[in-house]
Amino acid sequence: MSHAASTTEPSSMLHRAEAIKAIETLWARFLDERTLPGNLRDAIRYSLLNGGKRLRPILVLHCCEAVGVPPERLVEHTWASAGAIEMIHAFSLVHDDLPAMDDDDLRRGRPTLHRHTSEAMAILGGDALMGLAFELIATRLKPVELAGRIVVELSCATNDMIAGQVYDTLPDFDPGMSAMDRLLTIHRHKTGALIRAACRMGAICGGADDNQLEAITSYGQAIGLMFQVVDDLLDVTQSTRQLGKTAGKDQRQGKLTYPGILGLDASRAEVKRLRLEAENALECLGTAAEPLRVLCEYMAIRTK
Amino acid sequence: MSHAASTTEPSSMLHRAEAIKAIETLWARFLDERTLPGNLRDAIRYSLLNGGKRLRPILVLHCCEAVGVPPERLVEHTWASAGAIEMIHAFSLVHDDLPAMDDDDLRRGRPTLHRHTSEAMAILGGDALMGLAFELIATRLKPVELAGRIVVELSCATNDMIAGQVYDTLPDFDPGMSAMDRLLTIHRHKTGALIRAACRMGAICGGADDNQLEAITSYGQAIGLMFQVVDDLLDVTQSTRQLGKTAGKDQRQGKLTYPGILGLDASRAEVKRLRLEAENALECLGTAAEPLRVLCEYMAIRTK
Repeated sequence: MSHAASTTEPSSMLHRAEAIKAIETLWARFLDERTLPGNLRDAIRYSLLNGGKRLRPILVLHCCEAVGVPPERLVEHTWASAGAIEMIHAFSLVHDDLPAMDDDDLRRGRPTLHRHTSEAMAILGGDALMGLAFELIATRLKPVELAGRIVVELSCATNDMIAGQVYDTLPDFDPGMSAMDRLLTIHRHKTGALIRAACRMGAICGGADDNQLEAITSYGQAIGLMFQVVDDLLDVTQSTRQLGKTAGKDQRQGKLTYPGILGLDASRAEVKRLRLEAENALECLGTAAEPLRVLCEYMAIRTK
Repeated sequence: MSHAASTTEPSSMLHRAEAIKAIETLWARFLDERTLPGNLRDAIRYSLLNGGKRLRPILVLHCCEAVGVPPERLVEHTWASAGAIEMIHAFSLVHDDLPAMDDDDLRRGRPTLHRHTSEAMAILGGDALMGLAFELIATRLKPVELAGRIVVELSCATNDMIAGQVYDTLPDFDPGMSAMDRLLTIHRHKTGALIRAACRMGAICGGADDNQLEAITSYGQAIGLMFQVVDDLLDVTQSTRQLGKTAGKDQRQGKLTYPGILGLDASRAEVKRLRLEAENALECLGTAAEPLRVLCEYMAIRTK
């Protein structure tokens, strides 16, 4: 982030940038402390520690704050959960990019892991990212009851995400199912589950009560779907250079998308509807949820 | 198992066959209850529920028994841990067989998953097997403290196993390291870690005290290495038909093996030494460890 750009950010985003940097340092330390083959560690670092929007870690952080944890304690409460969910996200990108899957050469403006190393290393590196996500929670999150509860959230969401990738790339739907129902099934699983889990994990790590967790869950569901509608729109309207990944891919691959089914205008209206739904869910959380409101707005209007 | 064969088995092995059958039924129910795309569920069932030696589940079962759980309560205490570790094992086989890895067509006498379905499904099916292993523990093993402790064992062993696959297929060793040290590093990670974890998980689920857990851990380490020395020997001495997987592969791929480094006789002597080490570790556990002694003997003299 350039200095000129950062002066226009709201203060919550400046604090967030510092918190994310502190959290990433703790992830790097976790990886350094783990005995691993050097080339595997390099592959993991390449995938995890070189950019990315950090949306899921930011959600963990802000949802923890939204249920009442003070800013100065957020890093210690969230770094492990934020790291685990980002490792799951990174694993999914590495495997999705493989030649037998999306066969993509570019990710975040750099060669995909299998192009940077080898297909074998990308398979194993992705596997290790998933495995290390669970090891990170199990060995670093205390007390053990909290770790157990977080593994429920993380494992269910991971498997929903993998199921979503199957629905998307190897569809096996009931022939009577409408295009929109198929699309919703894909999106709720493929991206929605992990975004929802990021929100819930942050809230649970912050000691949320049942009402707070319900509000955070509703927020997470709405922004998870909104994220994907925006993603579908960007794939149509933005260039590869702007996105840092190959644009126009969905259409070329004949994938179901919101603009493809509803058209651009109705897809944009859906973004607005979901944004309102997310904002309404936050009402009961008061000012502590302000960063989540800002984030929701940012996610609705993002351009990459 | 044919009737003629089963009458020659010791009684502990007959009870074991029934327990494993009961445990497999619980795994199948877990998979049926999980919402999954039909083709992904089929891929998982193909990999998990169609044969295999069930060595790791049997170890979970017998190590639970060895620390004092009565036979009639073993299934309820072990089915989730046994299922999770077998899912991790199945995931590793599916990914190891992929074209970019060992490129194998045959596994347990049947087409490998990517030959049976597609490469994309084998990548995703393997991913799902790993993810479901953690979901099974997190959602079915009670109390949550026990689940948290088991996830530590399972996740660390899974990542050691993945590291072992990297050491084996994409070696990145210090040039000064001897062939035997490289081989030990590969084996301790690739197969040793999961076998050791199976033993420890069984003992922990059985409420082992520190001394019992230490004894079981020593046993698990010895048989883990012994298993691999025997595997290396079988790859040289048995046919593909006898093994149900491609024989002679290690040598053709120029892999480090015990017979390759030590020769056949010294490798067989190493099997005997490790068998004695395993049996000695069990001394403090008394008659409850008898099935583990029988299993150790079986593992030393197995022919496939």
